[in-house]
Amino acid sequence: MSRKLSRKQLLIAGGAAGAAAAVGGGIVHESSSAPATARADTQTLPPAVPFHGTHQAGILTPQQSDLRFASFDFIGSGKDDLHDLLRTWTTAAATLVAGRSLGAAKEDPARPPSDTGEATGLAPARLTLTFGLGPTLFDKVGLGSKKPPQLADIPHFPFDELDPNQSNGDLCVQACADDPQVAFHAIRALARTGFGVTALRWIQSGFLSSPVGGGTKRNLMGFKDGTANPSTSDDAMMKSNVWAASGDGQDWMANGSYLVSRKVQIHIEVWDSSAESEQEGVFGRHKLSGAPFGGTSEFSPVDIKDLPTRAHIRRANPRRGEVTERQRILRRGYNFDEGLEAGFTESVAGLFFLAYQRDPRAQFVPIQARLAAQDRLNEYIQHVSSAVWAVLPGIRKPDEYLGQTLFEA
Amino acid sequence: MSRKLSRKQLLIAGGAAGAAAAVGGGIVHESSSAPATARADTQTLPPAVPFHGTHQAGILTPQQSDLRFASFDFIGSGKDDLHDLLRTWTTAAATLVAGRSLGAAKEDPARPPSDTGEATGLAPARLTLTFGLGPTLFDKVGLGSKKPPQLADIPHFPFDELDPNQSNGDLCVQACADDPQVAFHAIRALARTGFGVTALRWIQSGFLSSPVGGGTKRNLMGFKDGTANPSTSDDAMMKSNVWAASGDGQDWMANGSYLVSRKVQIHIEVWDSSAESEQEGVFGRHKLSGAPFGGTSEFSPVDIKDLPTRAHIRRANPRRGEVTERQRILRRGYNFDEGLEAGFTESVAGLFFLAYQRDPRAQFVPIQARLAAQDRLNEYIQHVSSAVWAVLPGIRKPDEYLGQTLFEA
Repeated sequence: MSRKLSRKQLLIAGGAAGAAAAVGGGIVHESSSAPATARADTQTLPPAVPFHGTHQAGILTPQQSDLRFASFDFIGSGKDDLHDLLRTWTTAAATLVAGRSLGAAKEDPARPPSDTGEATGLAPARLTLTFGLGPTLFDKVGLGSKKPPQLADIPHFPFDELDPNQSNGDLCVQACADDPQVAFHAIRALARTGFGVTALRWIQSGFLSSPVGGGTKRNLMGFKDGTANPSTSDDAMMKSNVWAASGDGQDWMANGSYLVSRKVQIHIEVWDSSAESEQEGVFGRHKLSGAPFGGTSEFSPVDIKDLPTRAHIRRANPRRGEVTERQRILRRGYNFDEGLEAGFTESVAGLFFLAYQRDPRAQFVPIQARLAAQDRLNEYIQHVSSAVWAVLPGIRKPDEYLGQTLFEA
Repeated sequence: MSRKLSRKQLLIAGGAAGAAAAVGGGIVHESSSAPATARADTQTLPPAVPFHGTHQAGILTPQQSDLRFASFDFIGSGKDDLHDLLRTWTTAAATLVAGRSLGAAKEDPARPPSDTGEATGLAPARLTLTFGLGPTLFDKVGLGSKKPPQLADIPHFPFDELDPNQSNGDLCVQACADDPQVAFHAIRALARTGFGVTALRWIQSGFLSSPVGGGTKRNLMGFKDGTANPSTSDDAMMKSNVWAASGDGQDWMANGSYLVSRKVQIHIEVWDSSAESEQEGVFGRHKLSGAPFGGTSEFSPVDIKDLPTRAHIRRANPRRGEVTERQRILRRGYNFDEGLEAGFTESVAGLFFLAYQRDPRAQFVPIQARLAAQDRLNEYIQHVSSAVWAVLPGIRKPDEYLGQTLFEA
């Protein structure tokens, strides 16, 4: 056990909360009396990702290998419950990303363990937990006047076949880690600590595999995905296209961001029987190298004239100078694979698209409108879920909590 | 690209097969004319797991982090189609586990790519592909007289609620790798190369996370799982309890094994609201340390007298000397997590139990009969799928194929 770990520790009696919630409130409160239980000796491992900062982690953080994305319904009774929930989640999240257990060293054996235990002994695994609020939450808790205009509902697009059971929600948590069990544990822990005030609505898993030596990762269509993604080290671009700013409509969202999540199923079997030339024409890129048509390598400049009119990368970004530069979004999606549709032989697999941006009305929506209208890729994919989230500003100090600016606005 | 890779390469025109199968046979034949396309420079990575050996890899191989387990229906027309399928799969599997693409350096762009491409650039990731035959296959292909008696149907147990869509099958492939995309790609590739002769029936994903510094992994109930598993380096135990031998009934199975697969769902929310003392009593072990009741550490000897009568580890192995020693099985299961049941708030998560053994009739069946009758764990779990497989003997040389002893018997 590392001795470097902070002694300040939360007793998040999540299990006890689960039991107590049937009777009482369900929101669990802090205690600093219990010592930290380290999950693992972290000295030889990649360091835990810092939880505090101007922005939440999990947006510019280099993508981890595993995702569990959870949407929650808020079932509490108002603003105070939301406030308590966000305080509780903040403390729990700081503990989890540090690779520590929510359990105390000594617990009452007559109560459920505070920590479910499946991550005990595992590394922090670069866990990030990124929290967002859905459009439906604000009116529910009497904060309708604080709802950001950027959080307008995503319009229905042609070909959308959205499953309400996998769409929308009042709150979201994006858990990313280099270990699926660590991400799973984090969502389970947050669901337990929020018991009685929130209820899980849907969870999406995903994975992403890194090529040897690095470079752009491939999606399940076999193509490099993310070549044209803006660089997270381009501060000016992050400022203009990703981060919400004061004056954008709701100042409390400054340094937050807006996230659009879309589950995009691939018709794997249809795709797999299409010709290589067809597949490359659909994207406008060569499959192996990732080079755009007319280019020689992955990062060759894209010349619109070399691309078929309905090629995916042309529709996604028709390169009309400043107009389309301002639409660029920061994609952070994950591949998913859920076996076969029960009783059928078709694969349920695809891309769980996640994109951070400053204003979906001016970025995701016009991009998706172009794609829905004419993208050749539409023959091979199906959007089956959609949601939009106000991703909270980061917090800089341990005595702050996520969403504090909303409550103080 | 490593120059060490063999030039001998199969053109498994899986994509072409997919297209051609609508017209013709669907079994793809070999060609040695195309050069190997290396997936990645493998020189700095863990070496690929050898494909050839007395036994198939993926049984004694230290468990990889990710599983894709596929069950297939055989839809070919008889013994010859099965023979061709096993030859094709053997060649494809040897290529895949070496970390190589099924594609040739130059392919006809008017045809579907031979390799779907999502593993291009990825490491071999210790991929193993382990092939088995289901009880229903033998009569289907006119080989009923070759069916091993060990492959008897698993009886129905109390509390079983088996989903036929997730149970049984004519053929299975267990793909394990330290990268989910590599395992996914392998199953997809094998499904494509078998197109027209086999059809996917169900696929199960799983994962397993390694504690820092090694040691027994934890399941999603938070308990160490596998403490009492026999050591894979105990040759005598592997011989007596895992490997089929000449004289066991069907000599062609010598050096093969029998695999029982069971999908065991955990009622996560119920478990999470049970007391720590209850959880520990259910297993008969302490949660954090893994020590059995009455013991001080994980590997303390188990004394039956210290265990509650219905404790899981007592029911699983009541330690009656030689009788129960001969029942011991080699477990190689994976945790799974499939989000929430659609439209509900219950998690779909648990353990995909995989156990290798010499004779399920004398090992898994009596163990499970004891558990189904009295195991306290039954209150928290549900078996939802079941299958039994004759896992083929290994092949020692590149000119042999999996299942060869069956055809030559």
